[in-house]
Amino acid sequence: MSEVREKAVLAGKTAAILGGLGTEAKNEALLAAAKALEEQAAEIIAANREDLERGRQNGTSESLLDRLALNESRIAGIAEGLRQIVELPDPVGDVLATIDRPNGLHIVQQRVPLGVIGIIYEARPNVTVDAVGLCLKTGNAVVLRGGSSALSSNRKIVEIIHRTLEQTTVPKDAVQLIEDPNRSSVDEMLKLNGLLDVVIPRGGSSLIQTVVQNATVPVIETGAGICHTFLDETADPAMAEEIALNAKVQRPSVCNSMETLLVHRSYANRHLADLAEKFREAGVELRGCETTRKLVAWANPATEEDYATEYNDYILNVKIVDDLDEALAHIARFGTKHSECIVTENGGNAARFQQEVDAAAVYHNASTRFTDGFEFGFGAEIGISTQKLHARGPMGLPALTSSKYIIHGNGQIRK
Amino acid sequence: MSEVREKAVLAGKTAAILGGLGTEAKNEALLAAAKALEEQAAEIIAANREDLERGRQNGTSESLLDRLALNESRIAGIAEGLRQIVELPDPVGDVLATIDRPNGLHIVQQRVPLGVIGIIYEARPNVTVDAVGLCLKTGNAVVLRGGSSALSSNRKIVEIIHRTLEQTTVPKDAVQLIEDPNRSSVDEMLKLNGLLDVVIPRGGSSLIQTVVQNATVPVIETGAGICHTFLDETADPAMAEEIALNAKVQRPSVCNSMETLLVHRSYANRHLADLAEKFREAGVELRGCETTRKLVAWANPATEEDYATEYNDYILNVKIVDDLDEALAHIARFGTKHSECIVTENGGNAARFQQEVDAAAVYHNASTRFTDGFEFGFGAEIGISTQKLHARGPMGLPALTSSKYIIHGNGQIRK
Repeated sequence: MSEVREKAVLAGKTAAILGGLGTEAKNEALLAAAKALEEQAAEIIAANREDLERGRQNGTSESLLDRLALNESRIAGIAEGLRQIVELPDPVGDVLATIDRPNGLHIVQQRVPLGVIGIIYEARPNVTVDAVGLCLKTGNAVVLRGGSSALSSNRKIVEIIHRTLEQTTVPKDAVQLIEDPNRSSVDEMLKLNGLLDVVIPRGGSSLIQTVVQNATVPVIETGAGICHTFLDETADPAMAEEIALNAKVQRPSVCNSMETLLVHRSYANRHLADLAEKFREAGVELRGCETTRKLVAWANPATEEDYATEYNDYILNVKIVDDLDEALAHIARFGTKHSECIVTENGGNAARFQQEVDAAAVYHNASTRFTDGFEFGFGAEIGISTQKLHARGPMGLPALTSSKYIIHGNGQIRK
Repeated sequence: MSEVREKAVLAGKTAAILGGLGTEAKNEALLAAAKALEEQAAEIIAANREDLERGRQNGTSESLLDRLALNESRIAGIAEGLRQIVELPDPVGDVLATIDRPNGLHIVQQRVPLGVIGIIYEARPNVTVDAVGLCLKTGNAVVLRGGSSALSSNRKIVEIIHRTLEQTTVPKDAVQLIEDPNRSSVDEMLKLNGLLDVVIPRGGSSLIQTVVQNATVPVIETGAGICHTFLDETADPAMAEEIALNAKVQRPSVCNSMETLLVHRSYANRHLADLAEKFREAGVELRGCETTRKLVAWANPATEEDYATEYNDYILNVKIVDDLDEALAHIARFGTKHSECIVTENGGNAARFQQEVDAAAVYHNASTRFTDGFEFGFGAEIGISTQKLHARGPMGLPALTSSKYIIHGNGQIRK
């Protein structure tokens, strides 16, 4: 049996035990893990040094090395993340519905764990701990397939978690790390129907596309965001400027940042030159439609391909539109159904925008940067779903659960 | 552009309009369609005759021809199904959660249609109307890919629905029928990411497996059921007999019927011979484990493969187990997570069974045949989900919806 299959089977064998654990047992295990990670930080840092060394030899960029690097303070942050998960309410066992039928059947729909969750991710070793915390809290087993660049760190982290779980009622086999660094282990995970209940990719768009295109197990697609902000005719200029700048430059590398600014023609005539200047000061390259370039001489031309690109960088498309309809049509064509915003003082336009735009999060007069589990008050985030099945938008703990119908009878048969 | 892609695009263009329609507009269209189908029943029956004729020439079995056949009374039943959907509450627009954040953001999570739903199904033309009704009621567009054996009937039905919708506010392009009878149209649908939000297969297990194995769009897996009934040591004999017989013979061809009877050794010693006699009278072939065959001489031997087979027929495996643990282990190994039942007077055993069995519906003292949207009181059923994502068990109208976050701000930006 291959490593991937063997570990998925081991994980699956813990599902019944995990599903029956109370909240306290799960929390105790997570607290113990947080403590162990902090106490054994030196071991983790030593393992992480191996990854960094290998990365340097392979010519990994400094920014990637920085994402990979662990130190005492980052490990303390990771442990703190586990403690925050402990504080959250446990969704497992919640009663979602009760139905009493005329024939006397009493039906209870109850939240249960999903079962075995596969997480496929890239460089950052903090995802390892985060995924373990979220999965165990919701009674799920987890099969982790991290990037080869963080393998030594991930191995050490999982080793520490395993040693810790052995002292608790949570079975250590509930946490499995795939150590085969080949692409084939990913391909195999994606076909493990019956052993994995869902696979969640966390990473860049090429990873996500690989998963979506090849998986036969259910997938929750996360991440890709070409987000728009539309400054309507009646937008408040000060507010519009703050929101547009925030959506682009507060953290350009993330999925909920803005890639294209749509501007109503009459608003553009009055305010675009000033706004463009602010973007220039913030170091943002503008790529504009023809009309934009008449108002902002230094803007580069925007192509169709630009409108379809998630830059995650200090680059912004600017397009002038005649009205709300044109803005809606542009978003329908180029949006990725992640987060979209209208800035307007016209309540009717806001309502129509929020009704008609098909996206996980649709904002009126607020930055798209708020699409985030923590900002929504969920206290944790597994990712941001950009599909419509199961979960949409920021996913908190309930997104890692399913339900089951428990039916109490006294001899009912179907006529 | 291929027929499949072209029709999916047309369907997608209606999504914004559909999502904005009120319940009344949708209900009026469904009522008009019900009336038109009844009034134009003669046209449908004529088209259906073409399908039946073609089927006979191709040597289709009589039982399949019967499933395909339409007459006045069946068409009246189909129309009545639409009227029942009209009576159901419309889930679209329901507020699922409201969140007020300290920064003043007001977040409303609202039910919205999924968008464009692909339905891939086999012979029965009633599925065409049923799928249209369920999808339109929930504000979804639908791309129908029925079996080639029912193509003439499906064409006529969709033609009548199109003519009807033209007189209503529901855009007729919301309903699309793929007329290409080749397998390639199915394959193409399964890869239409971005155009189809979900594909639901309705049919036999080979169709479902084709869809699960080849789709890159999200799928809701339905149907396959290897369901067990466990007669525990303390089962009430009269109740046990009624439930076991009902689960097997009331309608053996469906997914929630029983395939394997598990019997506690001490119960078997007292009651199995009598129970087996009832099954024999009902025309059921028994395939038993060694111990079963000592108690029931005429039973055939059961193999591992038998335990893994969904017969959908008058065949039943019987296995004697030593205790609840052995029953649970058998179900964990051979069950398909559909419907499982324990018959017992021991409340502790019932509770443990219902907690530990991982299935969509877990029964205590009632027949597995109740796993059904109508029996659960949903008033409609799109199918029975056997996966854990999105929907599990019988799916009512809410299973055809997603949600979106609508966020009201007054200038909030992320710090």
